[in-house]
Amino acid sequence: MANGTHIRPPVIPGAVIGILGSGQLGRMLAMAAARLGIKCHIYAPEPGPAFDVAAFHTIGSYEDEAALADFADKVAVVTYEFENVPARAAEVLAAHCPVLPDWNALATSQDRLAEKQFVQKLGIETAPFAAVDDSGSLARAVAQIGRPSILKTRRFGYDGKGQTTIRPGSDLAVDFRSVGSVPCILEGVVPFVRELSVIAARSVSGSFAAFDVCENEHENHILSRTIVPATLSDDASSQAIDIVHRIMDALKYIGVITVEMFLVEEKLADGSKRERVIVNEIAPRVHNSGHWTIDGATTSQFEQHIRAICGWPLGSTLRHGRIEMRNLIGEDTNRWRDILGDSGACLHLYGKHEARPGRKMGHVTRVLLKE
Amino acid sequence: MANGTHIRPPVIPGAVIGILGSGQLGRMLAMAAARLGIKCHIYAPEPGPAFDVAAFHTIGSYEDEAALADFADKVAVVTYEFENVPARAAEVLAAHCPVLPDWNALATSQDRLAEKQFVQKLGIETAPFAAVDDSGSLARAVAQIGRPSILKTRRFGYDGKGQTTIRPGSDLAVDFRSVGSVPCILEGVVPFVRELSVIAARSVSGSFAAFDVCENEHENHILSRTIVPATLSDDASSQAIDIVHRIMDALKYIGVITVEMFLVEEKLADGSKRERVIVNEIAPRVHNSGHWTIDGATTSQFEQHIRAICGWPLGSTLRHGRIEMRNLIGEDTNRWRDILGDSGACLHLYGKHEARPGRKMGHVTRVLLKE
Repeated sequence: MANGTHIRPPVIPGAVIGILGSGQLGRMLAMAAARLGIKCHIYAPEPGPAFDVAAFHTIGSYEDEAALADFADKVAVVTYEFENVPARAAEVLAAHCPVLPDWNALATSQDRLAEKQFVQKLGIETAPFAAVDDSGSLARAVAQIGRPSILKTRRFGYDGKGQTTIRPGSDLAVDFRSVGSVPCILEGVVPFVRELSVIAARSVSGSFAAFDVCENEHENHILSRTIVPATLSDDASSQAIDIVHRIMDALKYIGVITVEMFLVEEKLADGSKRERVIVNEIAPRVHNSGHWTIDGATTSQFEQHIRAICGWPLGSTLRHGRIEMRNLIGEDTNRWRDILGDSGACLHLYGKHEARPGRKMGHVTRVLLKE
Repeated sequence: MANGTHIRPPVIPGAVIGILGSGQLGRMLAMAAARLGIKCHIYAPEPGPAFDVAAFHTIGSYEDEAALADFADKVAVVTYEFENVPARAAEVLAAHCPVLPDWNALATSQDRLAEKQFVQKLGIETAPFAAVDDSGSLARAVAQIGRPSILKTRRFGYDGKGQTTIRPGSDLAVDFRSVGSVPCILEGVVPFVRELSVIAARSVSGSFAAFDVCENEHENHILSRTIVPATLSDDASSQAIDIVHRIMDALKYIGVITVEMFLVEEKLADGSKRERVIVNEIAPRVHNSGHWTIDGATTSQFEQHIRAICGWPLGSTLRHGRIEMRNLIGEDTNRWRDILGDSGACLHLYGKHEARPGRKMGHVTRVLLKE
């Protein structure tokens, strides 16, 4: 794919950058860019929260090549708030301006199988996995991985969508049909003690900066709460950050990445315990578990991403204290008035009209400052 | 003036609020509103930095009553980024929706003489002053106040504009002409040890919250640096905050106010020193010396103002550490790349095109976190 990214001069304040996607991540990216004197042009198939805070917007589909080309001609660099940018859209855009993080990162993270294979090739541990193309290969995969295990579509899964648990005695043909009879990956269940994420950035010059490891709690497969710092050993924390550093270097990544991980505990022969981290998933973008950085770190994940894709130095990831971030899902958002009355709670609402169940409407960050 | 403000129900997330003025203060207000799920409609005679981050904007003069009425009909409440809102514009707007802070606050702060008289009536100390309407009354005022003293226009002064120093031996007729031969106030020179400001908010329910006292340094009459906390005694700090509280209560003020003050030191009979604060100027709005609150406090001055005018509870004014905020004036902004490379510096650029001398282009905040 054409890519003249790395030889372009850095973006300067006053420039216009492009963001694909009009959701809350695009919105918070646009607000971070504005702080730095950068104007944003949002491109999305439909209006969304990001439109309200951006200087320019285009409503267009990701298949409309003329509209994409026109958009890319007007901006200094294009980035995105979601990993499912179609290959052809990325190609069209990249012929007109840099797309960061580049296609390499998108291709790897769009396909759960390619992602797992990439991570494994770096010598980094993942859950056991096997490719599944039909119910026959599902049977072989189950024989290898065991039950219970998790069948996930290779593409387009998020927040628990496109996946099912293969339980003891279940009918594999039914299971395969339940995820749409599309190419899948079967993953072993990891007996984790905690779910973690690491959000880190890599600049054009290859410098690397990670935020402290986040500890995440999910409800109905949707992130509900992040606390920072995560409860884990210094050794496991270093492992986690080192893993992300290796992934970013291998991808020659530019921008913010998120790597979701499991923390597992193993009992050693002498009876002591050792913590180990296992990579679950890579998101080539800012992430819900990093929203705390807006109120709780010197540089937010959003600003960090803007700095990286503009060719600028990364900012300090220093944390202001102990953090708790809670998502406001669906009708949680109706509690806005109580939250405003809670001194020390930082409320963020995304400006979405309808509080549908499972919809991310906002979040609340509480920073317990260092004494 | 018509004002149904206090009986209106609170604004709810998703609502549109109106802001008069498209400068950097309007911009930062709009960004704070967006965080809370509020959309902004900017009204200004010409496009400016605030347009880039607001959902809606209208280009219109402050004399265009039809345009003002149309704007006010579309928003839940109107606020402003500058105190020189024309009386008639405020009246037109207030006939259609609440204008906060209300006319009372605008009228008081638009006229240096009315402001000083108001403060004095509350038993709060100001610099000695006298009204000046012509060169004859200037002679009487100088006889009363002495030289050097400062002749300021009663209206429309900012950043040192509309004022001149009455020096020993100067020609008073020339001095009066130099400020435009308009109604003026003559102020005595206060032998201050430091310039201070207090930024505080008052809610619809009358609750009050102040940020810590700021210490300000000016160059060429323009703010260049703010440090927080200011160097002053606990007693002087309490005096300063109490003064603002009394001013706000007297005005039944809703929103964020800024009171600029002088810190003076007097020698007592026993040889010890005592600090005293003297009110210099009131700005019925967010203020440059409060920009540090974006990165350095739980709630920013901008969010605090939005909370207050929406009828919401005030947020915590807790400070994250020791703060230094420096303005980027004119070509200072060309140092943006060095500042980005300074770990721990939070850079804010306002997206203005041309770096004219004396123009506020951005600011940099450094927070020295508490250990």
